[in-house]
Amino acid sequence: MQTVKAEVITIGDEILFGQITDTNTQWIGAELSKIGIRVVRKSSVGDTEDVILAVLKEAEQRADVILITGGLGPTKDDITKTTLTNYFDTTLEINEEALMQVTQYFTRRGRILSGINRQQAALPVGSTYLPNTRGTAPGMWFERNGKVFISMPGVPHEMKGLMTDEVLPRLKKAYKTPIIFHKYVHTIGIGESNLAEKIEDWEDALPPHIRLAYLPSLGTVKLRLTATGNDLATLETEVDTQIEGLKPLIQPFIFGYENAELVTVIGKLLNAAQQTVSVAESCTGGYLAHQITRFAGSSAYFQGGVVSYSNEAKMQFLGVRPETLDAHGAVSEETIREMAEGVRQRFGTAYGLATSGIAGPDGGTETKPVGTVWVAVATPESTMTRRLQLGGTREQNIHLSALNVLNMLRKALLHEENN
Amino acid sequence: MQTVKAEVITIGDEILFGQITDTNTQWIGAELSKIGIRVVRKSSVGDTEDVILAVLKEAEQRADVILITGGLGPTKDDITKTTLTNYFDTTLEINEEALMQVTQYFTRRGRILSGINRQQAALPVGSTYLPNTRGTAPGMWFERNGKVFISMPGVPHEMKGLMTDEVLPRLKKAYKTPIIFHKYVHTIGIGESNLAEKIEDWEDALPPHIRLAYLPSLGTVKLRLTATGNDLATLETEVDTQIEGLKPLIQPFIFGYENAELVTVIGKLLNAAQQTVSVAESCTGGYLAHQITRFAGSSAYFQGGVVSYSNEAKMQFLGVRPETLDAHGAVSEETIREMAEGVRQRFGTAYGLATSGIAGPDGGTETKPVGTVWVAVATPESTMTRRLQLGGTREQNIHLSALNVLNMLRKALLHEENN
Repeated sequence: MQTVKAEVITIGDEILFGQITDTNTQWIGAELSKIGIRVVRKSSVGDTEDVILAVLKEAEQRADVILITGGLGPTKDDITKTTLTNYFDTTLEINEEALMQVTQYFTRRGRILSGINRQQAALPVGSTYLPNTRGTAPGMWFERNGKVFISMPGVPHEMKGLMTDEVLPRLKKAYKTPIIFHKYVHTIGIGESNLAEKIEDWEDALPPHIRLAYLPSLGTVKLRLTATGNDLATLETEVDTQIEGLKPLIQPFIFGYENAELVTVIGKLLNAAQQTVSVAESCTGGYLAHQITRFAGSSAYFQGGVVSYSNEAKMQFLGVRPETLDAHGAVSEETIREMAEGVRQRFGTAYGLATSGIAGPDGGTETKPVGTVWVAVATPESTMTRRLQLGGTREQNIHLSALNVLNMLRKALLHEENN
Repeated sequence: MQTVKAEVITIGDEILFGQITDTNTQWIGAELSKIGIRVVRKSSVGDTEDVILAVLKEAEQRADVILITGGLGPTKDDITKTTLTNYFDTTLEINEEALMQVTQYFTRRGRILSGINRQQAALPVGSTYLPNTRGTAPGMWFERNGKVFISMPGVPHEMKGLMTDEVLPRLKKAYKTPIIFHKYVHTIGIGESNLAEKIEDWEDALPPHIRLAYLPSLGTVKLRLTATGNDLATLETEVDTQIEGLKPLIQPFIFGYENAELVTVIGKLLNAAQQTVSVAESCTGGYLAHQITRFAGSSAYFQGGVVSYSNEAKMQFLGVRPETLDAHGAVSEETIREMAEGVRQRFGTAYGLATSGIAGPDGGTETKPVGTVWVAVATPESTMTRRLQLGGTREQNIHLSALNVLNMLRKALLHEENN
């Protein structure tokens, strides 16, 4: 059994200058982790030959597998391929298989292969061609002194396709690796420090081959248990036993395990009860509906929603009474109650969710400062309302408003289930 | 004038294992770029002391400023502070100012300072305390042999607050840097290679101190011109002159400059015309409304929308006729036309947008495969419809559907403006 170390190198000025978000290396890290290859370092460098050569050399000294993304585009600012050609002291030659692939790519789209794109099929002699069916830049695989170098385009869906179709299967074949087993526990409604204090004794008693990490996001904290060993079944049992010990300490805050999402947990509860939901959104402005509908299968329990940005829309589509708006305003317990009940009734769903607040950065008043948000859940039995006082940016306040009303729905559904 | 080189180091197993998205380094790169400090490398390493020590040493040899994020939490897996203490061969001591800050942080939230959080106020002797008003982990500033090391928490809003309040002002004071001037041109509706071919001659004629980069995202391509020199006004004029030469080559595809967003460009056009818009969403499920409302000020032109996931909702809230749904289905030109016209009429807005399609991964048929999407824009004069055939994931198809209908609205508004 080997411990295989990987490094990921991303190439591109745009990443250093902060002009694009790098989502590639996160995905690569997760995929390698699943096959027992451990990413020990990630580096980003610019489109400059000597810097790329230096980072390749460093990585070669530390890691077994070096994955490189970016800098393979057809435009002049992309120099990864020529740099790799120099690094391996070889030359570029048109690869016939790659040329056919690129030609087909253009033909299928009714386009003519231009000179600039024909050059995409030129590969360093000695490298193995990895077909990219989703774009025009081929992947490349190099081996030298037992080290593997893989070059892939930076466009996320092309890189993911190449990894899935070519790179991961080849790596699995090339290495026998120790088993790294991760399991996740998802919590909501409790901060990282409070969580740490509640589970301190449990954490101290973990055996050395099981590590715990806190992964906080806005509004939620994920716990990751990582076990390393030789036998998957044993590791699974050990981790599950530890989680059984953890549960009683923080039960009300746990909403799921593994890759659970708050919204899909709710979807399962709704499906099990054969119930449906609709949403009335003011301050979340469509974000709440989007959170629900970004998951396939949501149409089984989600009927739809109204984004009632104006008072007219609140009255016309949700039946909020003009007297209520006049007397209490759009951001009030009275209005949110009528919004939730109105959307529930008009969509004919079992549950109705509503949000109304001042997401910011403007629009606050002395009595209702920015971050004042009312949320409500109307159920077949009653309507629950809650006032939040949030302190984030517009984006954060929108996100936290949605999380809060979804967690209220989750609790209501669990309560139903237990009755 | 100095060329100041910076490196950014992120610390945390969770980044290597791919469990969280690193948005910090993008933001840091952009902010440093604005004050003329050039990020030359970004590295991510795990929570392991010897690896952190090694990457600090390497960075110290290459860069002038080393920014470190992460690993400052109160929990046991966070070791950045003790590692920095060892790196600078010093000891930890409670910093009274930091202790007061942490205590106040807890008091304001009605919580008691626990032992684990009291330790947050312990700082390496010799470091400068950088107050973090948004959390419990202070920032730290170290200087040695003319190199600066800055340690910040990894929680994005805490890091951003520290950078804005403390780090950037201190860096601006510490260095006189060359001026790096960026300008962006945003395009939609044309791919990277096509764009490159259209502007090839222009690109070849750029002077050496102005560099061009293509920054493609899903559905859009951003062009970045980067000019380096001594005088900001000269650089601005030079870049603007180049952009004037670029415009005629790709005018129909340009939707904005600088930090323009498609939605805010549309918002400005609507405000100028004193017009409003509403949206009827099926396949985009709230995403389109969210794209509009995530910008402050959208309430001036956005009245609201309906997420009509079910056929009932399409009939009840948008007035789509049952005969239309029966004869043509929800994903059809006839239905999308009635959705756009219905939402426009019921919200009383000048424009009505609509989307209906099969976002996937399931739900496709032979005649309407996954990725079939109809979009429509109803204007005071007429209704335009368009059929898209998308090939991405659910998430990508939702995004591209929203972009397409927004770009249709943009063109309709420009057309109005020119009449």
